[in-house]
Amino acid sequence: MNDMHFSTPEQFAQLTAFYRTTLLEDVIPFWLKHGLDREHGGIMTALDRDGSVLDTDKSVWFQGRAGWTFATLYNTVERRPEWLEAARLCHEFSRRHCVGPAGKMWYSVTREGRPLRMRRYVYSEAFAAIARAAYAKATGDATAAREAVELFATYLRYSFEPGVMAPKFEPARPAKGLAPLMIAIVTAQELRANLREVTVSGRTCTEWIDVCVAEIERDFLKPDLQALMEQVTPDGQVLDHLDGRTLNPGHAIECAWFVMHEGAVRGDARLIRLGTTILDWMWARGWDDEFGGILYFRDVFGKPVQEYWHDMKFWWPHNEAIIATHMAWKLTGDAKYARWHRLVHDWSFQHFPDPGFGEWYGYLHRDGTVSQRAKGNLYKGPFHLPRMLLQCGWLIPGR
Amino acid sequence: MNDMHFSTPEQFAQLTAFYRTTLLEDVIPFWLKHGLDREHGGIMTALDRDGSVLDTDKSVWFQGRAGWTFATLYNTVERRPEWLEAARLCHEFSRRHCVGPAGKMWYSVTREGRPLRMRRYVYSEAFAAIARAAYAKATGDATAAREAVELFATYLRYSFEPGVMAPKFEPARPAKGLAPLMIAIVTAQELRANLREVTVSGRTCTEWIDVCVAEIERDFLKPDLQALMEQVTPDGQVLDHLDGRTLNPGHAIECAWFVMHEGAVRGDARLIRLGTTILDWMWARGWDDEFGGILYFRDVFGKPVQEYWHDMKFWWPHNEAIIATHMAWKLTGDAKYARWHRLVHDWSFQHFPDPGFGEWYGYLHRDGTVSQRAKGNLYKGPFHLPRMLLQCGWLIPGR
Repeated sequence: MNDMHFSTPEQFAQLTAFYRTTLLEDVIPFWLKHGLDREHGGIMTALDRDGSVLDTDKSVWFQGRAGWTFATLYNTVERRPEWLEAARLCHEFSRRHCVGPAGKMWYSVTREGRPLRMRRYVYSEAFAAIARAAYAKATGDATAAREAVELFATYLRYSFEPGVMAPKFEPARPAKGLAPLMIAIVTAQELRANLREVTVSGRTCTEWIDVCVAEIERDFLKPDLQALMEQVTPDGQVLDHLDGRTLNPGHAIECAWFVMHEGAVRGDARLIRLGTTILDWMWARGWDDEFGGILYFRDVFGKPVQEYWHDMKFWWPHNEAIIATHMAWKLTGDAKYARWHRLVHDWSFQHFPDPGFGEWYGYLHRDGTVSQRAKGNLYKGPFHLPRMLLQCGWLIPGR
Repeated sequence: MNDMHFSTPEQFAQLTAFYRTTLLEDVIPFWLKHGLDREHGGIMTALDRDGSVLDTDKSVWFQGRAGWTFATLYNTVERRPEWLEAARLCHEFSRRHCVGPAGKMWYSVTREGRPLRMRRYVYSEAFAAIARAAYAKATGDATAAREAVELFATYLRYSFEPGVMAPKFEPARPAKGLAPLMIAIVTAQELRANLREVTVSGRTCTEWIDVCVAEIERDFLKPDLQALMEQVTPDGQVLDHLDGRTLNPGHAIECAWFVMHEGAVRGDARLIRLGTTILDWMWARGWDDEFGGILYFRDVFGKPVQEYWHDMKFWWPHNEAIIATHMAWKLTGDAKYARWHRLVHDWSFQHFPDPGFGEWYGYLHRDGTVSQRAKGNLYKGPFHLPRMLLQCGWLIPGR
């Protein structure tokens, strides 16, 4: 794939075809064959290199994320019954077994659907919301559409209403995170795409996006540091502690393309520029000049990072960087983004795929050697990689 | 240090002198100079390579662990006023700022002592208990002795009384861990060594050790698998899930020497054999034949391990393996343990020390290169390394 590039229409068509083929002939078949649980419903994602099951426990995140992936394939690529059936299995398992007391969802359940773990935060709810919305679009199921809105409302309430989510820290260290805002943006984008402009907790999807983008720009984006912080004080100050200084470049680059995508939907050049600014700064923070690839964590002042895997190469930041550079090039035509796209594309496809059994490894050492051979777990399943292949193979910004 | 070995009395004396010198001229001065907080009391452990402070937040674990280290040096090596003063600073900070509501201790506090985080579990209490006991021994402070007993009682209640500690998992996956039993053993050993045979929650220290060793042997030790499990069902079955299969060889080797030490204290050959059996099996699981050093996690069936740092080399498993092989050799005279001690001693001292600024790096890649240059954080401070140097430089089993 090394001579694929954006330079000519033929090369671009070849690149697009490559993403499509990888999605349809490698990645999706892997999960349909090995992960889908036709006995108990839902999907198992803890799969070994060859697809054999490492752990039957089910991630609630992934009943939503995989359900979204299969329904979105059905909605945007082709109306294949096997994709709708996969979406239905995830959807029904999620509805039946993943909702706990008072509508708050579990974090993990057994293969049969008995609850294993509840966590404080509410990403299970956000991922279920986008899955319900895509399923509603695919089937016209009004209950799924209503539940998507309810789940997003639960997500928003726990994430942004003071006092609803149990705090991790005592009042001496007030802080807020980038992640809840990002997930609110992408969830609102998905609900709007699949259910139209619904109103949730008193705001339309577009209004929620406006609120969240504004807060990110005001409190998390630091022009003097050329960085997008992961965590700040409630009024947007940098927290000069180990956690507060820790940047997650792949995560910030994911935020960059959520914002660029919003700019494309609205035809808003200012939002596109905000997205490319985040991309520019966080590419500079994350790209590993020595070994290639995107480093997992960096300290904003270049100090040591506490998290042990700070210099590892995980699959998903590479997926996000491939999308963001692809999108930035399409929206701006700046050749820099074509170069960056090629850099991260080539590094990723040289190191992550497993030609022996398909799909990607998830966890590489800094130098690109495989650290762990499994294809999935509670965090890795059919989401980041197929979303990237779908974004770069089909979807144009503004769908 | 490569020609140090146990073969002759001269070589053994040289090895002992090396451990003593490293402790007294390198490790302890580093923490006294850079970590001790003479302004607010207590100790800061998040130090960069050169000792500069990376984060002023204080680990409650380390107010106890460091307090124990300094008081134990004072009690066992030499009555140096600077060590007693360091122990006092940690002791008073811990008493004043680290105890939360209902006697449960915080997990972290600010430099000034304002609470930052409470966790479900109770290792803060166990580490404070051993520190109070050592401080009581050093000073005759009866309050410290009483508090040591009370803290150990709190530890035992949260760890072993059903329903007291908030569960992490729902009832569908009942499990119990090795760590609470191990920490109970070493805490009881320390209280007995410094306060004599006190009674805590209805059992003497020795009786608590008996109960915990028996449970480890009955439920966690698996002769058919030649492994000491980290986690089992309440009746001692292997949990065939990612977490349940995960072995922590360095942790199990630490358990091995706690048990050997108990055998030495009692002159009980059966306990010594139990300890060396654990060491034998878990050395085979943990030693990295390809790169040397002790791997962090292994799956009991050789499957992939979920934790990202599974193949990294952390400082503390090496400290535990140095102690365990040293102790096993002294107690059995088996030349195998002298060979293993040399292997792990040489690998550790070739890779962890920082001749530039002193102390050890904490986090190496599998191949022994430095992953992160800091000398400490909330988990690394003056405990595992000085305890190893103290054990191998002075203390004989049975003190």
